[in-house]
Amino acid sequence: MAHRIAVIAGDGIGTEVMPEGIRALEAAAKRFNLDLAFTTFEFGSCDYYLEHGKMLPDDWFEQLKDFDALFYGAVGWPDKVPDHISLWGSLLQFRRQFDQYINLRPCKLMPGIKSPLAGREPGDIDFYVVRENTEGEYSSVGGKMFAGTEREIVLQETVMSRIGVDRVLKYAFDLAQTRPRKKLTSATKSNGISITMPYWDERVAEMAKQYPDIAVDKFHIDILTANFVLHPDWFDVVVGSNLFGDILSDLGPACTGTIGIAPSANINPEGKFPSLFEPVHGSAPDIAGKGVANPIGQIWSGAMMLEHLGYKEASEAMVNAIEAILSEGNSQVLTRDIGGQGNTRSLGQAIAERI
Amino acid sequence: MAHRIAVIAGDGIGTEVMPEGIRALEAAAKRFNLDLAFTTFEFGSCDYYLEHGKMLPDDWFEQLKDFDALFYGAVGWPDKVPDHISLWGSLLQFRRQFDQYINLRPCKLMPGIKSPLAGREPGDIDFYVVRENTEGEYSSVGGKMFAGTEREIVLQETVMSRIGVDRVLKYAFDLAQTRPRKKLTSATKSNGISITMPYWDERVAEMAKQYPDIAVDKFHIDILTANFVLHPDWFDVVVGSNLFGDILSDLGPACTGTIGIAPSANINPEGKFPSLFEPVHGSAPDIAGKGVANPIGQIWSGAMMLEHLGYKEASEAMVNAIEAILSEGNSQVLTRDIGGQGNTRSLGQAIAERI
Ligand SMILES: CC(C)[C@H](C(=O)O)[C@@H](O)C(=O)O
Ligand SMILES: CC(C)[C@H](C(=O)O)[C@@H](O)C(=O)O
Repeated sequence: MAHRIAVIAGDGIGTEVMPEGIRALEAAAKRFNLDLAFTTFEFGSCDYYLEHGKMLPDDWFEQLKDFDALFYGAVGWPDKVPDHISLWGSLLQFRRQFDQYINLRPCKLMPGIKSPLAGREPGDIDFYVVRENTEGEYSSVGGKMFAGTEREIVLQETVMSRIGVDRVLKYAFDLAQTRPRKKLTSATKSNGISITMPYWDERVAEMAKQYPDIAVDKFHIDILTANFVLHPDWFDVVVGSNLFGDILSDLGPACTGTIGIAPSANINPEGKFPSLFEPVHGSAPDIAGKGVANPIGQIWSGAMMLEHLGYKEASEAMVNAIEAILSEGNSQVLTRDIGGQGNTRSLGQAIAERI
Repeated sequence: MAHRIAVIAGDGIGTEVMPEGIRALEAAAKRFNLDLAFTTFEFGSCDYYLEHGKMLPDDWFEQLKDFDALFYGAVGWPDKVPDHISLWGSLLQFRRQFDQYINLRPCKLMPGIKSPLAGREPGDIDFYVVRENTEGEYSSVGGKMFAGTEREIVLQETVMSRIGVDRVLKYAFDLAQTRPRKKLTSATKSNGISITMPYWDERVAEMAKQYPDIAVDKFHIDILTANFVLHPDWFDVVVGSNLFGDILSDLGPACTGTIGIAPSANINPEGKFPSLFEPVHGSAPDIAGKGVANPIGQIWSGAMMLEHLGYKEASEAMVNAIEAILSEGNSQVLTRDIGGQGNTRSLGQAIAERI
């Protein structure tokens, strides 16, 4: 039976890297005899917003809910639509309404990619950031009072629920158990953010009791970002709230020199709703339209999607193809951001052929 | 007339680096003919808490309010007192009650200190982080409901006021005007934190109108942390909320390899209350008691204190002495964290003599 994949390319370079993501997935499908059926949607982009006054049609939930996965490009174009409108009107809706409460992002120093950190080699940095993806600091509760006056005051509530915290911790601990080092680091800020963060620490301590085989430590987010730079080799699985996970999963890839190629998965582990797979990079209006964007983030996200659908071997073949092409370092093929003279298409094609 | 300085060493290595901070200040006072009168306080430490059941005496405000400045070591010892109690009971009280609404932290790559970033030399990284220091994410408003049950939910309010936001922005813009590059970067997250952060952006845009000579840009905090690692040379003055400023002012020093030596100032610019000067590093229970802590953060904080008191020349002499001793790189003198075989005292003495 075919796996039905909804494709939403979004804005900017999202529309340029998406075809390469699909090309690679089709190559993997051919080699491993998988049946993938792609359906493309125009909504979820700023152009759609300009035409319809909203990012998504009213029945988007109905239209998408029975797909096996969402394959997503990048959304946002601040000159057309303010970011908080485009993002809350699309991506953040999917994460919440489809209860994709895990945001999973590998941070891995790849061959052929230069880390901005001195003296780090492939193998030195290889960890996962597990981010809570539905609540916490990204809340929709709050407002403004005395608007427009000197006394103006703006409030926004951070919301943590036991259900919300425990389920992301459980996922992170389970993931740590599959890793050779069996280590979990919790991101906190309980010394400064004195209500929600001590609660987060409490739940981590409670969950840790059920995983005596996992080595657990915690750092305040300020020193944790410092340690990503100073000691990236310390980390194995790092778990954080919505905001802290967001920060760490950009900083981590930056430390591996791969912010433009890092993938991510927004997962509903129970499979009640479709999960969503997207590159970490945004829509990059500055380079959009030139065909030079690096498609690896999209392709690697496709690999995470195949793993999620149960095709571990096919997924690994995709990641191996990426690593092989990066190792070879053929400058005709590689995009400019990683030192080549090629373009989105040349790199996408090379990876698809290798698969 | 003497300048009255209240000295609170706090916990752990705070008590070890403080004497070196005072030694250096006394050297500067002698050379520049300043009259500094130090008064030492025992409160504000975890040992004080264990004895008195609180971090500060009830009349701390009265005892301290007429000093010209507070010279502060480091507080916190989690095995004795949970961090959120020791910090909210001391440092965070001072910041709020003395309305020290600016937290100012230089990030400067110093000679003789190796940056963890590949290929960066002194001169490449030289910026300030200006952090809002009294409100924002560090609020005392919130609580827990359905405690101990499955439905448990914890709320904490982020609070931004127009007064609070505008005054830190004004300080940051004014600072940018004193710098050769006249550049200001705002840390935001208005695409995800959809109420307070768009408000922050609004106020930045409004304030920018009054400073047409300042080049202003903004980044979301996730990509901003990435850019600290990838492009630290982009930054001149970076302004952020309480939490974002906290993160950036640990990450910035980490990128300059100086997390153990970075200084900070908690400033009440109007001089209505005393300002507070403290190293960025914490109390470091792991190395406390060994006499090996690096005293430069404390000494450099002393230099910031002298500048605040109006002694620019004396302040510069202190920073120059630090740079000179670091440049010479005499391993008998330097502490272990920066590659030497000396200790807290040898390094402190060398700097004091140089002054
Ligand atoms: C100790 C802690 C509460 C404090 C803060 O977060 O403000 C520290 O990290 C700092 O930056 O001064
Ligand atoms: C675009 C933005 C709302 C989003 C987030 O902060 O979640 C992005 O940074 C991400 O990490 O997926």
